Formats: sequence, C-alpha cells, structure tokens
Amino acid sequence: MSHAMSPAMGIARNLFDAIRTATDDGVGVSRAPYSEAEQRASDLLQGCAGSLRLESSVDVFGNLYLTLPGRDRARPGWITGSHIDSVPSGGNFDGLAGVIAGITAIAALREAGVTPSADITVMGVRAEEASAWYAGAHGGHFGSRAALGILPPEELDSAINSRTGRSMRAHMAEAGFQPDRVALGQPVLDLARYRGWLELHIEQGPVLERTGLPVGVVTAIRGSARARSCRCTGAYTHSGAVPHEYRSDTVLATVELLHLLEQEAERLRSAGGDLTFTVGKLFTDAALHSITKVPGQIDFCLEYRSQTRAVLDRMIECARVESLRIAGERRVSFDLGRFSPQDPATMDSEFRSMLSRGAAELGIPVMDIPSGAGHDAQDFVHAGLPAAMIFVRNANGSHNAQEAMDYGDFAEGTRLLAWMMAAED
Amino acid sequence: MSHAMSPAMGIARNLFDAIRTATDDGVGVSRAPYSEAEQRASDLLQGCAGSLRLESSVDVFGNLYLTLPGRDRARPGWITGSHIDSVPSGGNFDGLAGVIAGITAIAALREAGVTPSADITVMGVRAEEASAWYAGAHGGHFGSRAALGILPPEELDSAINSRTGRSMRAHMAEAGFQPDRVALGQPVLDLARYRGWLELHIEQGPVLERTGLPVGVVTAIRGSARARSCRCTGAYTHSGAVPHEYRSDTVLATVELLHLLEQEAERLRSAGGDLTFTVGKLFTDAALHSITKVPGQIDFCLEYRSQTRAVLDRMIECARVESLRIAGERRVSFDLGRFSPQDPATMDSEFRSMLSRGAAELGIPVMDIPSGAGHDAQDFVHAGLPAAMIFVRNANGSHNAQEAMDYGDFAEGTRLLAWMMAAED
Repeated sequence: MSHAMSPAMGIARNLFDAIRTATDDGVGVSRAPYSEAEQRASDLLQGCAGSLRLESSVDVFGNLYLTLPGRDRARPGWITGSHIDSVPSGGNFDGLAGVIAGITAIAALREAGVTPSADITVMGVRAEEASAWYAGAHGGHFGSRAALGILPPEELDSAINSRTGRSMRAHMAEAGFQPDRVALGQPVLDLARYRGWLELHIEQGPVLERTGLPVGVVTAIRGSARARSCRCTGAYTHSGAVPHEYRSDTVLATVELLHLLEQEAERLRSAGGDLTFTVGKLFTDAALHSITKVPGQIDFCLEYRSQTRAVLDRMIECARVESLRIAGERRVSFDLGRFSPQDPATMDSEFRSMLSRGAAELGIPVMDIPSGAGHDAQDFVHAGLPAAMIFVRNANGSHNAQEAMDYGDFAEGTRLLAWMMAAED
Repeated sequence: MSHAMSPAMGIARNLFDAIRTATDDGVGVSRAPYSEAEQRASDLLQGCAGSLRLESSVDVFGNLYLTLPGRDRARPGWITGSHIDSVPSGGNFDGLAGVIAGITAIAALREAGVTPSADITVMGVRAEEASAWYAGAHGGHFGSRAALGILPPEELDSAINSRTGRSMRAHMAEAGFQPDRVALGQPVLDLARYRGWLELHIEQGPVLERTGLPVGVVTAIRGSARARSCRCTGAYTHSGAVPHEYRSDTVLATVELLHLLEQEAERLRSAGGDLTFTVGKLFTDAALHSITKVPGQIDFCLEYRSQTRAVLDRMIECARVESLRIAGERRVSFDLGRFSPQDPATMDSEFRSMLSRGAAELGIPVMDIPSGAGHDAQDFVHAGLPAAMIFVRNANGSHNAQEAMDYGDFAEGTRLLAWMMAAED
C-alpha cells in the first residue's frame, strides 16, 4: 500500500489546495454551516466521484456521500469521513482532512487494484462547527445528528447565527435542504448497512507533537459536564475598615473552592482517572469592583471533561458539597446553576485493536490518545454505531489559521485508514 | 461637663441639619472638593465663630480654622477637626462629625466656663475625599497635606476630576485659593504652635456596632501596600484537547497564589499581627475568555493593610516569592507591578492613655480599635505632629447615604474630646 500512496496523495493535495482557495477569507478559511463556501467545498469533493468511479449522493440535510462499491453490496461496510465546515478564519485541515483521507484511501485502494469485501462510503458532514457560528442553546454537530435521527428539532430554532440573527432552520432551508425532516426523528442513514464509523482528524492538542509521533489511536471522546453561569454572592464592604470575620468576601471564597476542585481533580488523575478541569471565565463586576472594596460578587464557569461518566459525576458532587460548606463558613452563597452533562463516547475496542495491529504492520509508530474535543464520531456512537478515530499530529492547536498538519503525517494516518478499510476479517 | 452637653448638642444638631440641607443631592450629600457645596458647608461652620467668640481664618488652600483663645496664647494647644467634603452621594457624618465635634466641645467648654490653658483650634479640612472625585495618580487628602507642606505639587496636575476632566489645580484656583503655593513645600500650619491633632470620626466598619460600644480609641491608622494592576499571562488553549501538563492556565495559577496569600495572612493574624488582605478585582478577558478555553490571561489587584510596616513588607515578599515559584511550576508569568506602600500612622501613646483615662472618668465604655481607612490624622503624624483619634459607632459603613451615627453616640465621643481638651497636664 505504501508505494501506491503517492498518486493518491496527489489527489489529496489538489483537493486541500482547491478547497482552501475556494474558501479563503484572507486570514484563514471560513466555511460556515450551510454557507456558499461550505457548498463550494462539498462540490469540489463530489467532483472526485467521476474519476474514482464512486457513487455519490447528498441527503436532505446536505451531507455528502461518496461510495466505493464492494464485492458484496449487501454486506455492512465502513463509513468514514468527517465534517466539511470550519470555524471562522480557521485552518483548512480541521474536519476536511477526515473527508479527504477517506477519498485518498479509496484512491489508494483503486490504485492497488483492491476491491473491498463490502461498500466503503465517505461522508462529508455539514455544520459540525455550528457552535462557533451559532449562539443559543444547541449542541452543534447538526449534519451528523440530523442524519442519525438524534437531533432535537428545537435546536434548529434555538441556534441563532451570530452574524445574521437567523436560525439554523432558516439557513439550512435557504441552502436548499429540508430541516423540517428533523422533526420525524428518523435517521436518513440506515445504520444496519454499516459496520462502523471511521474518522481521521487532526489532533487539536499538542500531545502527538510533544511525544514525537505522527498518528494516534483514539481511546474515547471525552464527555463533559459544564456549569456555564456560576455566581458567588457576598457583600461589598470597605477593604480597610471591615475585619475579616465580618466580611462576605466572594473572591477568597471562590478561590478556596477552585483550589479545592483542582486538588480533587489532581487526586483523581493521580489515581488513573481521565479528567480535565478548566475555569475559562472568572470575573468580578467591572461596574462595582474596586481595589478598596471587599468584592461582593464574582462570576465563573466550570468545565470538566472525562472519558468516564463517573469521574464527571464525582467532580459535580465535589463542587456541590464544597461550595455549600464554604458558603456556610465564609458568609457567602454560591449558585452553580445546572451542570449540563455530555456522555463520553468510547471508541470500539475491536476497531482500536485492529488499528494498533495495522499500525504495527505498516511500521507507523502510534500511541493511544483520548480526544478532548467533540467529533462527529461521538454522534455515531450515541446513535449505536461503533466507531474508531485516527488522530494526525498537528501543531498550534486547531480552530485557528495557524494549525499545521504535515502532509507526511497525513499520509501515514491515511495509510492506516486504508489498511483498516482493506483488512479482511 | 456632661450636664453642659445638651445646649452644645443643640448647636451640633443645627449645624448637621443646616449643612445636610445645603449639600443634599437627592440621594445623600455631595460636597466635592473645592465645590460650591463644600464652600457652603465651610461658610456655615464659620458662621458659628461669632456666637462662640472664636477667631476664624481660612488658609490659602481653603482650610477653615476656628480658634478658642487659651489662657497662655504662646503655649502649644490642641488642633482638632476633620474634613468638610464628602464622597458623591455620601453620608452627612463622614468627616463633618469631626469638625462639628470640635465646635461642640468648645461650646461645651464655653458653657462650663472653662478657659483652656492653651488655644484650641478647630480645623475644617478641604478635599480629603479627593480619591472619590479625582482619577489619576494622587493620594487624596489635599487640604491637610497642602497645609502641612507635604503635598507633592505634581499631584495637583495628575488628579483629574472625573466629571469635568480638569485638574485639582484648576478647581482649587477657581474656588479662589492658591494651589501654586504648594510648590513652596512649606507648611502654612506652624506645627510648633500645636500640642497635637485630635480627630473624631465615625467608624467606617462594623466593629463598634457589633461589639456594642459607642466609642473607640484608635490605635493606628493602617498603612497599606497596593498592587493595582497585576497580571498573570499564560496561553489560551483548548480545554478538552490540551492535557494539564501542557497548559499555561492563568486562572488556576492565580487561584493557587491567592489561596496561599490568604493562608499566609491568616498565619500572621493568628500570631497577633494586624492585617487585612483584599483582592477587590479579579477578571479574565471578556473579549477572549470562553468556557472551552484554558484561560491565557487574568488580571487582579492586591491590597494589604496593617498597623505594622513589617507585616506589609512580609506580605509583599510572600507575593513576590510565591508568584515566581508558581510561574515556574505552572508555565505562566506573573507581573505584579509595583506595590505602592503607605506607612501606617501610629497614634500617640500618651494621648491614647489620656483618652482611656478620660473615658473611664466619664463612664464611657470604649475599646481600642485600628483604623482601616485613611484619615487626615495620618498626614499630621507623617508631618511630625502626634495625633489621636476617637471613633464613634456607625451603622451601614460609610461612603454611602445609609451611614447611621446616633447623636447619643456622637455626644459621648464629643464629651471625651472635650475632656481631652480641658485636661490640664
């Protein structure tokens, strides 16, 4: 397979370049969900179908499918891909690499003269990055969740485009698709036709780069528990004239809580638990705070991510118990609001074993790695289809124009994907 | 003396009422430095000179002096008083109570037929509350510092009225006074003529109220050390995809620092040290922070107050040492900026003993109490004149229209002040 990769890689580079040029915004690429740019990218991808002799179709939500017929068309085959859209002024690889990897792997199979035992479908998913473009209460991933029949229809209306002020429903309809079909709650993908979902994606953290490995095999997509609007309320008083025993100091109370949560998170990690703990926002009230006032209010948010739901639950409980204790001791009150939990999505253990075996056969050094960010793969898992993910080394994080995937690393990840597709079991 | 207080208290109440009416702003009182309202208040105070047969004068900075001649006019006598101005929409008692207490005590001496051994001067100080009206780099207390020859002249230009945009120099000149005299660095008060400064002031904290005592004898005005613009800088990264060992998380680094400083402050207090520790502002960048980003920047301020300079120095050192250690361990940097130290002003121990003895003789229950807020008394101490302060119980803090001093408590504090003035030594 490795010798056959070079012509296929030419197809890949042409696609990356053409789509970058078609969706360049001067800073990075911008392929908003259901925008003309996203459509241009989809059209360029669909344009490969002819030369590679693939069947192509688009579903009622705009998702693109390119299918390589297998020897037994009734047999469940792989579906692979990722999303076509991007964040505003993002990089060209986040999402797109997974779609092009699928096409490239098929091209490599074609070149090698391999006809797989079952169909292989490449899916180009729409509107995965909706969270970066649409405010309001929604979970992003509109294309995959709609296709899988697991998108709550109300999210089409609660997701509001931050630039146009119009709903996702309006934008999806305007692009020529059928948002009203979401209300049926029926998948347009017949999961019985698929063996599993395979998704190649750039790593959005620095782990592969720091470890010096080109490719990672994802263990699970972390679930999360988020409290978006926490508030500690006390009393504004004179910073000089009021002794500490009479204060209701919200900053020092919140500092104690956060320090304690960090220590608990470290304990769980030390014991082998998978967990990230992030306080992305922490702020006193700019209209009222002063260097000479005991702070009477502070707002913050809490985010936990873990591959294990029990770890999330334990951190939620820790926040509740300790905030109550501290409130009593420090004469303040905490309102943590509701934690919105998102279940982890564990990658299929058989698929992971296959990928490890394939990497060994191909001589690609890999490591196991959790995914901290969300991916379409989690929606397939939640809908009941087993999934696996391949991470490709990437510098400078993602969701910015500086993301930097090396084509050599992409080729390694794609070789592994092609191996997986061709593996007879 | 106590029997003679009632007619004198009538004078006091009339003055409080007249000045409140003359400077009412609908919410509270507003007597801005060098405003017409401050002048009206000064004029009403000066109007007492005739009936009480006091010498009156106004210095080149607008400070008012009312003097009761003593038996030996060459002998150094007491100077007493406080400030005439107020914060915006403040209470009527903060400052003014000290000026009226001086007049009331003199009225009581007059009624009792007491001629003191030396002159007694009541000073109505201008522009003490300048920090509440003027932005820019300055230390407030313009009237007392100018009169004492310790006001750096550049502060007249760096203090900018937040409403008019004009300097303190401009406002002082417009009110008819001579800011250019500040540049001479000469006191207009001849300190050799005074035995000491006595200042009655409402307590700005809740200690007397919570303790159930009408009057406190101030031990010292706390000094302070303030770092106004501290910043922790790290890196914004993905909250899910970046493991903790690769993060430069400024919130959790700052939380560790603040928690540690609080613990050190508690240790110092437990060991008998006098100290308040306040973090009045703490905020991530609203333009960049997000629940799904590791926070790359957080700003905060630090304020310590203590009666002991060494305690302030120890806390400054603790912040420097620990912020350096944490920066190294957590891959962030701290810029704490400069701590601007303000020395504590210890009240004269002989005067304090006299006040305690006087309170015992008068049957007034008192306690020793530090002053957390700044007062004109500190400027007299810094200029070399010994000082003492009497605090009067007050509810609801100060610097707001809800401050609540009971006239009965004021009468007790003023009795003690009059006793001190009349005490022959």
